[in-house]
Amino acid sequence: MTDQTPRVQLLLTGNEIMSGDTVDSNSAMIAKRLDELAIGIYRKVTVGDDPALLQQELTAMAANADLIIVNGGLGPTVDDLTAEILAAAAKVSLQEHPQAIAHLQQWCAGRNLELNAANLKQAMLPEGCQIVDNPIGSAVGFEMNMDGCRIICTPGVPSELAAMLDIIVASLAAEREQPVERNIMRLQTFGLGESSAQQIISDNIPDWPASVELGFRAGAPQMEIKLSINSNAALDARQRCRGHIDDLFGDHVIGEGDTLLAARVLDLLRQRGETLTTAESCTGGLIASMLTRIAGSSDGFHAGFVTYANDIKQAVLDVPQDDLDTHGAVSEQVVRAMALGALEKSGADHAIAVSGIAGPGGGSADKPVGTVWLAWGSSDKLRTRCLCWPVERSLFQTMIAAAGLDMIRRSLLGIDEEPRYFRQRKAR
Amino acid sequence: MTDQTPRVQLLLTGNEIMSGDTVDSNSAMIAKRLDELAIGIYRKVTVGDDPALLQQELTAMAANADLIIVNGGLGPTVDDLTAEILAAAAKVSLQEHPQAIAHLQQWCAGRNLELNAANLKQAMLPEGCQIVDNPIGSAVGFEMNMDGCRIICTPGVPSELAAMLDIIVASLAAEREQPVERNIMRLQTFGLGESSAQQIISDNIPDWPASVELGFRAGAPQMEIKLSINSNAALDARQRCRGHIDDLFGDHVIGEGDTLLAARVLDLLRQRGETLTTAESCTGGLIASMLTRIAGSSDGFHAGFVTYANDIKQAVLDVPQDDLDTHGAVSEQVVRAMALGALEKSGADHAIAVSGIAGPGGGSADKPVGTVWLAWGSSDKLRTRCLCWPVERSLFQTMIAAAGLDMIRRSLLGIDEEPRYFRQRKAR
Repeated sequence: MTDQTPRVQLLLTGNEIMSGDTVDSNSAMIAKRLDELAIGIYRKVTVGDDPALLQQELTAMAANADLIIVNGGLGPTVDDLTAEILAAAAKVSLQEHPQAIAHLQQWCAGRNLELNAANLKQAMLPEGCQIVDNPIGSAVGFEMNMDGCRIICTPGVPSELAAMLDIIVASLAAEREQPVERNIMRLQTFGLGESSAQQIISDNIPDWPASVELGFRAGAPQMEIKLSINSNAALDARQRCRGHIDDLFGDHVIGEGDTLLAARVLDLLRQRGETLTTAESCTGGLIASMLTRIAGSSDGFHAGFVTYANDIKQAVLDVPQDDLDTHGAVSEQVVRAMALGALEKSGADHAIAVSGIAGPGGGSADKPVGTVWLAWGSSDKLRTRCLCWPVERSLFQTMIAAAGLDMIRRSLLGIDEEPRYFRQRKAR
Repeated sequence: MTDQTPRVQLLLTGNEIMSGDTVDSNSAMIAKRLDELAIGIYRKVTVGDDPALLQQELTAMAANADLIIVNGGLGPTVDDLTAEILAAAAKVSLQEHPQAIAHLQQWCAGRNLELNAANLKQAMLPEGCQIVDNPIGSAVGFEMNMDGCRIICTPGVPSELAAMLDIIVASLAAEREQPVERNIMRLQTFGLGESSAQQIISDNIPDWPASVELGFRAGAPQMEIKLSINSNAALDARQRCRGHIDDLFGDHVIGEGDTLLAARVLDLLRQRGETLTTAESCTGGLIASMLTRIAGSSDGFHAGFVTYANDIKQAVLDVPQDDLDTHGAVSEQVVRAMALGALEKSGADHAIAVSGIAGPGGGSADKPVGTVWLAWGSSDKLRTRCLCWPVERSLFQTMIAAAGLDMIRRSLLGIDEEPRYFRQRKAR
C-alpha cells in the first residue's frame, strides 16, 4: 500500500443486525482501530443475509474504494455466505484452502471435537485468497483483490473480530513506506460535559494548534478527551495542549488510556497501603460493585454496606435513631454517621457514604428527587456535601457512585479545589 | 399506504458514528419498532456529514425504496445538513416552516431561553414537507415525497428518536387499510443459551407452526425468546407454542416483555410482604445493585453486605473463624454462615450469599477460577450449591449475581426442579 490514505468502505452482513436484535458495535470497533493509522471509513452499508444484494453491494463498492472490510457471514451455518459471494463477485471458484483446513483441525483438536461438515464449509474459500489468522475462533478471515480493490473479510463475533483486527492493523501499518506516526492520547475525565469542556478550551486556548486534533466521547460516568496527532513533529505541541488542559481542569482528569475511576482509586489506595469502605443507601451497592469489577480490588476494598432502610442504617452502622428522626435519612447528620459507622465496623482508612433520593418516587418540596448527601474521607477528616442531580434513576445512581469515588480520588491526591459539578449540581 | 409491505431503507448520518466514537443504537431501535408492523429494513447506509455523498446516497436510495428513514443531522449546528440535502435532492427550496417556528418558540419558552439563530436554522425545511412532532427536543422531524418515495427525517438523539418513533409507528399503522395484526410476544429467560434453546425446541416440537416466527436475542445475563405472529388467526397456535415452551423449560422463563430478574424477585417478595438480604463476596455488591436499580426496591430489599475480605466475613457476618481456616472462604460452610449472618443482622426473610473466585488471579488446582459457592433461602430452609463458571471476571460476576437472584425466584415460586445451568456448570 502506498502512503496515500486509502478510501475505505465497510460492508456489514447479518439478519440479526438488520432486525435490531443485535446492536452493531463491530463497525465502531473497526473504525477506532483504523483511526490508529489515521485511516477513516467514509461509507458503510449494512444488509441482511441476502446473497444477490450482498454481491451487488460488494461490486458497487469495489468501484469506489481502495479497501473494503467485510464483517460477518464467515460462520459454519447456511446463512454464512461471504466466501461464496466474494467468489461469485470476483468470478473465481471456491476451493478448499489447506491453511484453513489446518487451522480448523487444530481448533477442533484443542476442544476434543470432530471436524464436521459444517466446519469444513469454513475452509471453502475463493481461489487465490490469502488467509488472515483467527487466533480464537474457528472461522479464518481472508483477503483478496477484486478489480484493484483490496477486500478483507472478518468474522462477526466481536471477540474474534478484535483479535483479528490486531493482525490487520499491524499488517496495514507494516506495509506503509513511511512509519505511521499517528498517535492518539486519550484522557479520561469525570464531572465535565462535552460541550462545557469544548467551551472552556475554546475560551482559554485561542491558539490551539492545528496539528493537534481534539475530540470528545461522552459516556456515563466518564467522558473521554482525545488528542490525536499525525506526525511526531506535533508531539511537543500536543504536550503543550495537555499542559493547558491540566491547567484548566486537570483535577477532573482521572488518567490516560482506558483508566476507570474505580481503578484509579484502587491504585492510589495500593500506593499507600490503605483501604476504603462504602456505606450506600441510594446507590444500593453500585460503588462496591464498581470497585470489585476491577481485578485485584481486594487489596484496597474489604467491606461495603448497603443500608437501604432506616432501621438497617441504625442496626448495622449505628446511625443514631435521633438523627434519623430529626433530620431524615437524606441529611448531613445521617450520611456522616453512616461513614463513621462503616469506618468503625470495617477498620478501613477511608469511607464513602451516600444517602439520597434516586426517584422516581420519594421526593418532596424540601428534598426533591435527585437530592443526595455525600460524606467522604477518614474519621479525622470527614467531609460532606449535598448535591442535586435530577436525572433518571439508573443514571443518577451511576453519576452519584462515580462522584463518591471521585471525591476519594481527590482527597487521596490532596486536591482541595472543588470540582465543577459541585457548583453545577448544587442543591437548592 | 397500501397493505403491501413497503421496501424500507435507512440512511444514517453523523461523523461520530463513522469515527466509532458513538456506537449506533438508533438503527436497532428503528428496526425493532418497524418490526411491530411486520416491516423489515432491507438495506442501511451510513455516511459522515458530507453533503455531496449524502445527497448521492439519498437519490440512489429513493429509486429503490418505498420508504426511507433518515436519522441524524437535524440539530442546530453547521454539520446538521439533512434539511438542506433533502431540499437539494428534491429540487425544492428551504423555507421557514411556521409549525416548526411555533414548536421552537414553545420549546424555548419552556426553558426560559431566547430563540437564537442556531435554533431558527432548525425551522428552515424543504418546501412542501410535513412536520413530525418532536415531543421532547427542539428539532422537529419532517417527511416528504421524492420521486414516489416517502422520506421521513428523524433526530439522532436517541431519546428524541424514541419519542418520535411512537408517532411514526402509530401513523404508519393507522394508514393501513387492514389493521396491523403483527403481535410479538417476548419471553425473558435466564440460564439458557440461544443454541441450546433452539435445539430443545427443534428436538421436541417437530410440528412448530409456520405461522409463529421464533427468534432469540442473547444477552447477559438474560436471553429473550420472541414469538411473533402476523395475524390474529395465529394467536391460538402461538398460545400452544408458549405452552410447549413452558413444558420444556418454563422454569427458566422469568416473565414477558422486558421483565428483569431483579424486578421479578422484588414483585414476588412484594406479593408476600417479605424481604431479601444479600451477603456478597465475589459479586462485590452487584446483586444489591441489580435490585436497587429497580424503582420501589426498598419494599423488598433493606440491607446488603459486601464482605470481600475474610476478617470482614467474620467481623460483620459472624462467620466462624474456624470455618474460614478449615474450609477456606470459598466453601459451603462459609457461604452458609454468610447467609445466616446476613439474615440475622438484617432481619430479612430470605438471603442470597455468594463466595467464589472471579479471577483472573486467586485460582488453585482444587478451586480453579470460576468456582463459586451459592447459598439461598431462609434460615429454616437454606440451600447451597457449588458451580464452576469460568468466564471473564465481569461476565462471571454478572452471571453469578443473576444465578443468585434466579435461585430466590425459583424458591419463592416453589420450583424444586434444578435449572439446566446447575448440570452444565457443575463444579468438578
